[in-house]
Amino acid sequence: MTLLHQLYTEAGQSPWIDNLSRDAIRSGRLANMLDDGIRGVTSNPTIFQKAMTGTDAYSGVLDKRGIRAADDMVVLPLQCGTQWDGLGHVFYEDNMWNGYDCREVSSFGAAKCGIEKTKDKMVGRGVFLDVARALGKDCLDDGYGITCADLDLTAKKQNIALKRGDYIIVRTGQMERCLKAGNWDGYPGGDAPGFAFETLEFVAKTELAALASDTWGCEVRPNNTEGGINQPWHWITIPIMGMTMGEIFYLKDLAEDCATDGVYEFMFVAPAIPITGAVGSPTNPLAIK
Amino acid sequence: MTLLHQLYTEAGQSPWIDNLSRDAIRSGRLANMLDDGIRGVTSNPTIFQKAMTGTDAYSGVLDKRGIRAADDMVVLPLQCGTQWDGLGHVFYEDNMWNGYDCREVSSFGAAKCGIEKTKDKMVGRGVFLDVARALGKDCLDDGYGITCADLDLTAKKQNIALKRGDYIIVRTGQMERCLKAGNWDGYPGGDAPGFAFETLEFVAKTELAALASDTWGCEVRPNNTEGGINQPWHWITIPIMGMTMGEIFYLKDLAEDCATDGVYEFMFVAPAIPITGAVGSPTNPLAIK
Amino acid sequence: MTLLHQLYTEAGQSPWIDNLSRDAIRSGRLANMLDDGIRGVTSNPTIFQKAMTGTDAYSGVLDKRGIRAADDMVVLPLQCGTQWDGLGHVFYEDNMWNGYDCREVSSFGAAKCGIEKTKDKMVGRGVFLDVARALGKDCLDDGYGITCADLDLTAKKQNIALKRGDYIIVRTGQMERCLKAGNWDGYPGGDAPGFAFETLEFVAKTELAALASDTWGCEVRPNNTEGGINQPWHWITIPIMGMTMGEIFYLKDLAEDCATDGVYEFMFVAPAIPITGAVGSPTNPLAIK
Amino acid sequence: MTLLHQLYTEAGQSPWIDNLSRDAIRSGRLANMLDDGIRGVTSNPTIFQKAMTGTDAYSGVLDKRGIRAADDMVVLPLQCGTQWDGLGHVFYEDNMWNGYDCREVSSFGAAKCGIEKTKDKMVGRGVFLDVARALGKDCLDDGYGITCADLDLTAKKQNIALKRGDYIIVRTGQMERCLKAGNWDGYPGGDAPGFAFETLEFVAKTELAALASDTWGCEVRPNNTEGGINQPWHWITIPIMGMTMGEIFYLKDLAEDCATDGVYEFMFVAPAIPITGAVGSPTNPLAIK
Repeated sequence: MTLLHQLYTEAGQSPWIDNLSRDAIRSGRLANMLDDGIRGVTSNPTIFQKAMTGTDAYSGVLDKRGIRAADDMVVLPLQCGTQWDGLGHVFYEDNMWNGYDCREVSSFGAAKCGIEKTKDKMVGRGVFLDVARALGKDCLDDGYGITCADLDLTAKKQNIALKRGDYIIVRTGQMERCLKAGNWDGYPGGDAPGFAFETLEFVAKTELAALASDTWGCEVRPNNTEGGINQPWHWITIPIMGMTMGEIFYLKDLAEDCATDGVYEFMFVAPAIPITGAVGSPTNPLAIK
Repeated sequence: MTLLHQLYTEAGQSPWIDNLSRDAIRSGRLANMLDDGIRGVTSNPTIFQKAMTGTDAYSGVLDKRGIRAADDMVVLPLQCGTQWDGLGHVFYEDNMWNGYDCREVSSFGAAKCGIEKTKDKMVGRGVFLDVARALGKDCLDDGYGITCADLDLTAKKQNIALKRGDYIIVRTGQMERCLKAGNWDGYPGGDAPGFAFETLEFVAKTELAALASDTWGCEVRPNNTEGGINQPWHWITIPIMGMTMGEIFYLKDLAEDCATDGVYEFMFVAPAIPITGAVGSPTNPLAIK
Repeated sequence: MTLLHQLYTEAGQSPWIDNLSRDAIRSGRLANMLDDGIRGVTSNPTIFQKAMTGTDAYSGVLDKRGIRAADDMVVLPLQCGTQWDGLGHVFYEDNMWNGYDCREVSSFGAAKCGIEKTKDKMVGRGVFLDVARALGKDCLDDGYGITCADLDLTAKKQNIALKRGDYIIVRTGQMERCLKAGNWDGYPGGDAPGFAFETLEFVAKTELAALASDTWGCEVRPNNTEGGINQPWHWITIPIMGMTMGEIFYLKDLAEDCATDGVYEFMFVAPAIPITGAVGSPTNPLAIK
Repeated sequence: MTLLHQLYTEAGQSPWIDNLSRDAIRSGRLANMLDDGIRGVTSNPTIFQKAMTGTDAYSGVLDKRGIRAADDMVVLPLQCGTQWDGLGHVFYEDNMWNGYDCREVSSFGAAKCGIEKTKDKMVGRGVFLDVARALGKDCLDDGYGITCADLDLTAKKQNIALKRGDYIIVRTGQMERCLKAGNWDGYPGGDAPGFAFETLEFVAKTELAALASDTWGCEVRPNNTEGGINQPWHWITIPIMGMTMGEIFYLKDLAEDCATDGVYEFMFVAPAIPITGAVGSPTNPLAIK
């Protein structure tokens, strides 16, 4: 078994993965989930537990099992971190996307529009629109509603043309502001920069495949709304337009990479974990150049 | 808002995603997680709950919130479905990969070798070895130990050369047998086809990036072992060789696609959900041709 | 600190509790919850996890916290073990007890008839009716419907008179059969002895405070029913009669105690854990003679 | 079925329970668990979920099951509310109560000193010591360490003699301060009134059966301690003295009742939910006069 000792003395993670995959992904991962302290983003918090540990191993209590191993479990609200909102997530009156009755989403799961329907999609051309940078800001102000003109201006400054079916990723800088401050207060559900109601026209015109951002809910908060409607842009994008929406994306590394090479398009691969009957699910999205 | 009604009457899921992403992924998804009834694969079962439902919406109890929406949570053992075993999952005596002390994996998480270390890796050339097909079987027999010779024969029959850094996906047919029978009895922890102990040599020689299969634990069961050692191949691959291992991969669609076009290589993208401190985590792996 | 070593060498649990409480409780506890392997009694299973362990302590990883301690968590379906069905557990058409609209029980909890309403009740005279024993059986047969006549006969044989407001505990022997067999198959939701539909008259006539039994659902299974109605006795007892029902009670020790001394009445103390908005909750009921 | 309509029109909860149990319990319940917003008291938060709802019933989606019912689940850190600390909760060096090795408490549960050992104990004479009232305060100050003299003075003022085996319940007023303020900030783990280190002598001399209080951790915080020891009183009471400790008890109603009638003793019934292998567990304790 000489092979073993040879490897055992090497440094770091699995040497092969480190050496060989790195070139494939220049722009890094876009997931921030459970990685920098976002907890309690939804009404339910996340609990991470070890089901078996190295301390059990060290204590000798695993040896009767003939193997020394560790295992984990999580209690995970499915929309607590980097994730896709599925088409069953928001209803318009008594209907969801495609006119399905909202009662199809009961305590037993989503019989229609479950996130598992997207399991082999979410691959295509990604385009990054760094709106904060185009407007000369580190972070857009809370309450700033991104307009269609802002999006067009950003694309123009970045010298990138949008095409039908693109996955469009928009940066406000808000998550980086929270990470820098070491404080997520207000990130879930508080005031935030985000899409103005008028960007429904941008969505329709562009015929994008999906839209994602670095905020909790994509939409500007306080909302562009009257009369007690909460998240009005969601009322239209999800149940009426059938748009899948990505939230809580980590965009710092991608922003730096694109600013460096001036290339704002890439292969985007971001399938959700296919939990049957869920209306949203985590993803670890990758931008591959 | 004429745009809305135009879309509302279209059939199916979001039309843009359907039309445009499909070409990108010919071989489909490899994840089976929570999608065909695998529950209780680990010692803890999976619980899927709705946190808010369409039936709440229909009943009018959400309207005081100003939005009609659904949400979910899961209680999820991280290795209960299609997933990666991280390098902190199995210990050799008191150590894990790279000689780290196993006590680094305590009830508070894995301070070393957490699965989050792989978050922007797991992208590269994938090679599919359909061993069951090469040996003329729908499913290898339980207890059949795949040999180095079997793997070499399969590659040769498929006319594919393995390279350093490949992600190698091996099909035994066992999951399809369970799906066909509608019964997962014995799948978790029972007898199974899988890698013989001698394939450690194949792993070392190939210098593969990671290895995955369609069984619960990759390794043949009953194990090639003496003296009460459980999963002896794991004792070496994970803590000694530093190999990340994929389990419970769904390979039926990929097998059919490769048999049809005769192309057994593809772009493989399979990042784990980056749960900091976990020793394994779900993935929705894609093979993209 | 001489006091410490003096105690440290004593045997067993806390000596004071052992010595002094024992006389107070002759008939022992009635709870079986999570204590003999009932898991998965409801549609969701129970998960028990350590959040911090003695193995962590032994491994030295707790010392930076300045204390060596263990902690736990459970994922607990509230009706998975010895428990009370609250008045919001079953609906009759669109109503629950007292005519409240069933929509008061939404994903956000039970705004009416929550189990917390009973938090300082469930204390009174308990009467044990050992129907299995009165009918000369170790365990009533599955599918045997206990009649009003059986209950009257049991009380007569035991020489006990029932009074308005009694807590009546009825033994079928089914749980003991499962414990003896070491097998809970069929216990949750399978065939069982239990109350025949006609015992609604016994409940009404007796004006009992609550009724409990040693089965999963009190009611005989297969049910006395026609036309697809499931658990018809529950349709009446809970939403129409306002009766709180105890299920999965452990009655072996109580049966033996009462057979020995011939005394079938006692002080019954069985408050539920007051989880606000729940429709049922665990209890550890005591019969105190 | 005339009986049904007769009951259906009555007001309130089950009339029999209301009418007949009330006299039995004059001093009310002592549990505060999940009832007034204590969440996150331990490192893991509590999650309450409906598994099936009245809104599902109203929406008609339950009818194929033949019954309209609701059900719940919780994710519950066992020490998050009114609860008993078992004898496996705190270790002294590598040992717990009675000299058991701390490794007996692993990820698989407590093989020794599990809380289930107390399942049919915790019944006896209760004595309430209202220290806050005796010292002329609504609430003792945070950081105030209750002394042996304070306890003796309170008993004297209340004209009550303590006996071997008593369950002693001590009020600081802190929980009522939080409830009045509508704010639990600092309650878990923050500064608090509580037992001074010297009260170990009171515990030893009194030979009490168990001790409980209305704070998060019984012991004064900041602790009476030097050199990085956290909760020093716990180090002694639990693993060395074998004392079971009750925390987060709700004492407002009991305080008012005792002040009114001048009777500070009662029957105390407070069995924990017997979760096998747990080191602490919820209880709904009752003081019965």
